[in-house]
Amino acid sequence: MDDPASEASEHAALREPVAEWFRDLRDLIRAEFEAIEAEQTGPLADRAAGRFEEKPWQRPTEDGSDGGGGVMSVMRGRVFEKVGVNISTVWGEFGEEMRRAIPGAAEDPRFWASGISVVAHLQSPLVPAVHMNTRMIFTREGWFAGGADLTPMRLESPSAVEDAAAFHEALRGACEGYGAELYPRFKEWCDRYFYLPHRKEPRGAGGIFYDHYRSGDVQRDFAFTRDVGLAFLRGYAAIVRHRMGQAWTAEERDHQLVRRGRYVEFNLLHDRGTLFGLKTGGNIEAILMSLPPEVRWP
Amino acid sequence: MDDPASEASEHAALREPVAEWFRDLRDLIRAEFEAIEAEQTGPLADRAAGRFEEKPWQRPTEDGSDGGGGVMSVMRGRVFEKVGVNISTVWGEFGEEMRRAIPGAAEDPRFWASGISVVAHLQSPLVPAVHMNTRMIFTREGWFAGGADLTPMRLESPSAVEDAAAFHEALRGACEGYGAELYPRFKEWCDRYFYLPHRKEPRGAGGIFYDHYRSGDVQRDFAFTRDVGLAFLRGYAAIVRHRMGQAWTAEERDHQLVRRGRYVEFNLLHDRGTLFGLKTGGNIEAILMSLPPEVRWP
Repeated sequence: MDDPASEASEHAALREPVAEWFRDLRDLIRAEFEAIEAEQTGPLADRAAGRFEEKPWQRPTEDGSDGGGGVMSVMRGRVFEKVGVNISTVWGEFGEEMRRAIPGAAEDPRFWASGISVVAHLQSPLVPAVHMNTRMIFTREGWFAGGADLTPMRLESPSAVEDAAAFHEALRGACEGYGAELYPRFKEWCDRYFYLPHRKEPRGAGGIFYDHYRSGDVQRDFAFTRDVGLAFLRGYAAIVRHRMGQAWTAEERDHQLVRRGRYVEFNLLHDRGTLFGLKTGGNIEAILMSLPPEVRWP
Repeated sequence: MDDPASEASEHAALREPVAEWFRDLRDLIRAEFEAIEAEQTGPLADRAAGRFEEKPWQRPTEDGSDGGGGVMSVMRGRVFEKVGVNISTVWGEFGEEMRRAIPGAAEDPRFWASGISVVAHLQSPLVPAVHMNTRMIFTREGWFAGGADLTPMRLESPSAVEDAAAFHEALRGACEGYGAELYPRFKEWCDRYFYLPHRKEPRGAGGIFYDHYRSGDVQRDFAFTRDVGLAFLRGYAAIVRHRMGQAWTAEERDHQLVRRGRYVEFNLLHDRGTLFGLKTGGNIEAILMSLPPEVRWP
């Protein structure tokens, strides 16, 4: 795709299908997570099954023009203590600071971005927390970014090792059709990214992470993005179903609340998406949806 | 004090008395807070009164030389859910990044710093949380910095307004003898500093905040620092004693845990002391002592 005019028109044609995909994936995730809630017969089964609640928001713009927006969905349930599934499609012009930081934005500050973001904190300390985000961004260039990572509470426990292996296997499967180098590269990137330097600790068991991904074939990259979303959903739902019947101890729950503190520390101190969102006046509620419902720093 | 040699020797002579003062103030604060714990006859009086536990730490240096250290003191009690009182005296050479940021460090990277830091999170949502920090820093220059601020859970409630007025009155009293301009200037600085731009909210009811304070009379500035510490202790202890007998509702407790989320957001996103500490490889446990024992992002 060396012809900028034809690239631009292919990009324009992609916007609607890409935004639609993120809506579709959001619907799939919500349906699957609500099904899991309904299936629960283990701990807390005496509570009502959770259902997602939706809340749309508009991106405010300086001149009052339409800058897009998004829809938050949050479920507070008996398996999923708090899970947010947010989609957004926004457009406009980057401010000065962003123009220097974002590829292609120096020449032309206009952007269009669409994506989905999922963070789940579970009632059970035996079920890992999870995060997944995929997005497409257009400036004069167009690219995909995202990733998914798993956060078991006790990284070294046999069940966490097993869950991490299954999660990685699912993501490896999604990458495989797009080049053998993708999975190892994106896995290593994830390990580097989700790391707490002040604690000298990884955030969890990793997964994949990638930014500014453009192979040269945008349709193929879009298909890769879809496969990452589906692999995340399949892989993670299987882990939840496998573990959600097990009873936990008060000590395990307590340890979970402390580990969640690390999650907060990462998101507020290091996560570029969070800091980017807060700096660019994004929707606070949607950005901080990732923070756990209950946390301890004893 | 226009003679650099005589200024340097006065600074050297101050180190021991300054570090000793922070130890003395630490002892006073611990004794007063333990007395409050012992006095409690209201809510949670069936639990044992809290006592401070001490934990010393050494500042690691690259070449293994003595770089000073500190002592953390933490109490988990029935009035004070978690209160940390940390003192530290450290010295060495600033790294590249700090040399550009710190007055006097560009010419000579050596520093000496001593200080005290207090953060209290209370069991009762009706008693405000509090923070106080005072410190002295020497590079080629010498100066004091610090402040104290109060965080009631419901800023608009009559009791919070009353507590805030009493706290401010105590701090105003400490400033008064050192120039009529100090209190209004440091109060305004505090309001500007303890502000969450992403929430468009103040962190609490304010107090005073100052940095790089050197009037030209270092003995007088040291006396001011002592007065701030004593006024904080007197003012805050009175507020705790006034409120600690009142019973609270589950709704008030819940709201407190949510408000504590704002405290975490401020400290991890904005607080210069926290970010400075984490960046310069400070003691993680001491730096993050400020984080509340239990928090909710519902």
